[in-house]
Amino acid sequence: MRDVSANNPTTDACVVGIDYGTLSGRALVVRVADGAELGTATHEYRHGVIDATLGPGGRPLPPDWALQDPEDYLDVLRVAVPAALADAGIDAAQVIGIGTDFTACTVLPALADGTPLCQVDELADRPHAYPKLWKHHAGQPQADRINQLARDRDESWLARYGGKISAEWQFAKGLQLLEEDPEVYQRADRWIEAADWIIWQLCGTETRNACTAGYKGIYQDGRYPSREFLAALNPGFASFADGKLAHPVLPLGSRAGTLTARAAAWTHLPEGIAVAVGNVDAHVTPAAADALAPGQMTIIMGTSNCHVMNGAALAEVPGMCGVVDGGIVAGAYGYEAGQNGVGDIFAWDADHAVPPEYHQEARRRGVSLHELLTQYAAEQPPGAHGLIALDWLNGNRSVLVDAHLSGAIVGLTLATRPADIYRALLEATAFGTRVIVDAFDAAGAGVTELVIAGGLLRNELLMQIYADVTGRPLHLAGSAQAPALGSAIHAAVAAGAYPDVPAAAAVMGRRAGRTYQPDPAATAVYDQLYAEYLLLHDYFGRGSNEVMHRLRALRDQVLRDKASGGHS
Amino acid sequence: MRDVSANNPTTDACVVGIDYGTLSGRALVVRVADGAELGTATHEYRHGVIDATLGPGGRPLPPDWALQDPEDYLDVLRVAVPAALADAGIDAAQVIGIGTDFTACTVLPALADGTPLCQVDELADRPHAYPKLWKHHAGQPQADRINQLARDRDESWLARYGGKISAEWQFAKGLQLLEEDPEVYQRADRWIEAADWIIWQLCGTETRNACTAGYKGIYQDGRYPSREFLAALNPGFASFADGKLAHPVLPLGSRAGTLTARAAAWTHLPEGIAVAVGNVDAHVTPAAADALAPGQMTIIMGTSNCHVMNGAALAEVPGMCGVVDGGIVAGAYGYEAGQNGVGDIFAWDADHAVPPEYHQEARRRGVSLHELLTQYAAEQPPGAHGLIALDWLNGNRSVLVDAHLSGAIVGLTLATRPADIYRALLEATAFGTRVIVDAFDAAGAGVTELVIAGGLLRNELLMQIYADVTGRPLHLAGSAQAPALGSAIHAAVAAGAYPDVPAAAAVMGRRAGRTYQPDPAATAVYDQLYAEYLLLHDYFGRGSNEVMHRLRALRDQVLRDKASGGHS
Repeated sequence: MRDVSANNPTTDACVVGIDYGTLSGRALVVRVADGAELGTATHEYRHGVIDATLGPGGRPLPPDWALQDPEDYLDVLRVAVPAALADAGIDAAQVIGIGTDFTACTVLPALADGTPLCQVDELADRPHAYPKLWKHHAGQPQADRINQLARDRDESWLARYGGKISAEWQFAKGLQLLEEDPEVYQRADRWIEAADWIIWQLCGTETRNACTAGYKGIYQDGRYPSREFLAALNPGFASFADGKLAHPVLPLGSRAGTLTARAAAWTHLPEGIAVAVGNVDAHVTPAAADALAPGQMTIIMGTSNCHVMNGAALAEVPGMCGVVDGGIVAGAYGYEAGQNGVGDIFAWDADHAVPPEYHQEARRRGVSLHELLTQYAAEQPPGAHGLIALDWLNGNRSVLVDAHLSGAIVGLTLATRPADIYRALLEATAFGTRVIVDAFDAAGAGVTELVIAGGLLRNELLMQIYADVTGRPLHLAGSAQAPALGSAIHAAVAAGAYPDVPAAAAVMGRRAGRTYQPDPAATAVYDQLYAEYLLLHDYFGRGSNEVMHRLRALRDQVLRDKASGGHS
Repeated sequence: MRDVSANNPTTDACVVGIDYGTLSGRALVVRVADGAELGTATHEYRHGVIDATLGPGGRPLPPDWALQDPEDYLDVLRVAVPAALADAGIDAAQVIGIGTDFTACTVLPALADGTPLCQVDELADRPHAYPKLWKHHAGQPQADRINQLARDRDESWLARYGGKISAEWQFAKGLQLLEEDPEVYQRADRWIEAADWIIWQLCGTETRNACTAGYKGIYQDGRYPSREFLAALNPGFASFADGKLAHPVLPLGSRAGTLTARAAAWTHLPEGIAVAVGNVDAHVTPAAADALAPGQMTIIMGTSNCHVMNGAALAEVPGMCGVVDGGIVAGAYGYEAGQNGVGDIFAWDADHAVPPEYHQEARRRGVSLHELLTQYAAEQPPGAHGLIALDWLNGNRSVLVDAHLSGAIVGLTLATRPADIYRALLEATAFGTRVIVDAFDAAGAGVTELVIAGGLLRNELLMQIYADVTGRPLHLAGSAQAPALGSAIHAAVAAGAYPDVPAAAAVMGRRAGRTYQPDPAATAVYDQLYAEYLLLHDYFGRGSNEVMHRLRALRDQVLRDKASGGHS
């Protein structure tokens, strides 16, 4: 065991990290001295994602809505934390701190005491009173207006978000609330990220964290967008930031407060232990992988890819999701970028484009269909399938920032087989990541190595492809629960066990043994294929041929006509 | 029963039509008076397509080779014709003529007496002594040189072939023979289409027909390419046309001779009956569908599409396969065009890109997978899937004449389902046909209606899509054995039962009851999608982005490196 900081109370000290996901929350008990994971438990949200109707017999929600019930978040404290303690077999008295991470931007309206508006009796049947989950996209018209106005007014903060504010974020969702349910808007004393709301429940103190304030709340250089800007969007929105958001913004890893008696009763943890300020799943992960140095890009690979990286200097990268001072760790500029579709593209292919004999063979070998397709795909050298794909089946949120782009496959022949297409899709997402890496490099935020977290890191072929395509060494996060470990690391810092997050990450974070080195010969082939990818990327994505937009518009028109009983 | 020509010997008179396909030959007994199909039989070639090794234990054939054994063609006479007679239950003495059609260009070297060189003992193990099937593509280097030289010399005949001579045709295959096996070349007194060789076997007389001489033998305006041209390709090739091809070219439907005693013994038909000159499967089909008037385009839809049409005037259509005076019917200019991949694209999709639940549902409904996909696809209006595809999975042989193009699909999303892709592929082939129709129109060979033959005419959705995409009424051939019926019609004319092929076709040819009319609203949507198709067609097919060629070249390079044990 390595030495730990002198102010670590005992070598038996533990912390609890909680990772709030889209469908469940996970609690992880971690030893402060070395980051060992001693026990864990998860709790599935009873209400899951509320996207059809609000409650039994409730009226249907419109398309693109996605809500949650905050009671589910509290249930994680009540159920998963005690279960994780039991699983770890430790004395709760050993726990010195608790930290959390959350999906974001998941945001809710609350009273001044923190009560969610959906828990106010007369508002319980109002959809706008509930937390809007990150993937609630019904605020797109509001986001479009925010972006148009920001461009018109040449707002300096716009470039910090790659030129586009997302419909997922605090302002679009808040403006939608104002314009669709003004009464609920007026009742909302606070518009608060679930990441911060859960901390309020733990320590009884309202806080705001640097990460969500920056990436989701347009908080830059110490301020939110101006009253003038907000009033131009809607006169009723002028005081949105001053009135509902404004609150001191705390650095990540700092102590929000101490655990209240009520929260101690929920969690079976000692009252008075340190509670770290809120954080976000992707942004705590670099700490878990000890990847906090500038140029170390952590990619959380799951249904989508999220790229987070610290930089020593401020750079404006086209199409990035955001750059926030202290957004990942205090004292550095935190960069975030993303790809909308990764694992969900592979799943789409496996679910909808693979014939029965592959399913049978997978069963025979006792492997998943993905594993079989990967085994077949791994048998061929780069370039052998003759395909190039564009990985935009769920739109593009990296440098093109255009959700209405779509996927494409070029090079199909009668000899093309399912594993060829599968491999081409794996590669397409790697090319998409290289576009991001190149954009960071070009903007002066150089990327020197990749560190992968998330479920897809188990796919060895995919890992090698990412190393080969980017020409960079690729490491793996060592924990299967990296976000929860990252939260635990922040808890240890909040508890004073380490002087700062990098110091804690150096001890408690870890990587898996294997490193993937780029194969120069494969990289040479991929350089050629990447050039093809870029040609098609720019042709379809930068206005040379707007066919993807026209196809989508025609599709929407035709389906509207059909729904209204019109022709076709 | 309709009246027939006065010189029809008896109303019981019959003819036999034989359709020589790629894997089998079909004989059909047809009543002269009304075209009624009385009996039929097929014979599968024992040797099929010889593309792996020549004989048991023979050495492997190189890639792109495809040979046949001429004994299989004679077996069709020996087996299928008597069986068809038996099936018809007629007296063989009723038969007054026999006609044939063949795949083309399927061509073989022979002695002056018609003996195939592969039946000369000492040459039986020489691959070049065998008939080269239409899809033997190993003469591509020779074809490339023929085309380059023709362009350099500004040969007037090149435009009659849409600007490109195919590797499948007589000259490329003959030049390959000369250059790869000069001894067999020297032994070949004749280089003859199987279409003409089978007639030689039936009537003991060598003939050449206007169809294959024109479309496959570059016979234009009464002459073959010049000695100077051929010598420039290879000095040893100078006398190729004069020495091995030259022979009077007879019009289609004329009498090549009468059935010999030997052939009568094979077929059980009366010695001395009329034998029509040779013909080609696609080119006899318009007669079977009574579609011989200018502007009536017959499309034979199977694994690929073949478009044939008469025109009153000579026009040079970009990318057509050929225009031949009397190439379909004497006295008119016969036009041919084609699409390389149609049914085989749909089969590729069904075989390799459709998940198990579709197979299960097809079994449950008792339909084929194609029928199920068609049922699902038919439920959606045009434009609803948001996709556009390029139908070049087997290359493009229509206006682009580029075998190295490949397929593409644009507009994919996570919501794309198998029936969406299937429908997009159906539509893509219809767009490919519209490109051809538009090219004919633009060149002055106007297309007024479509007549469909071949197995795909049973797909009602596909037929409606072709009508809607082309904006033209679409009729169906009435016979399920249209080529064999077409051959029988030519036999009736050769026997003197009708004055000419159009007169015979008007009585003996027929269409099915149903006509598909274009739906103007659907055509309006398809006009938009066709504009998208054309944009991508020209972008990928006319040099804006040569990605398809580069992907193919890279694939070939990588696979060569792998085969040679090099890196990949």
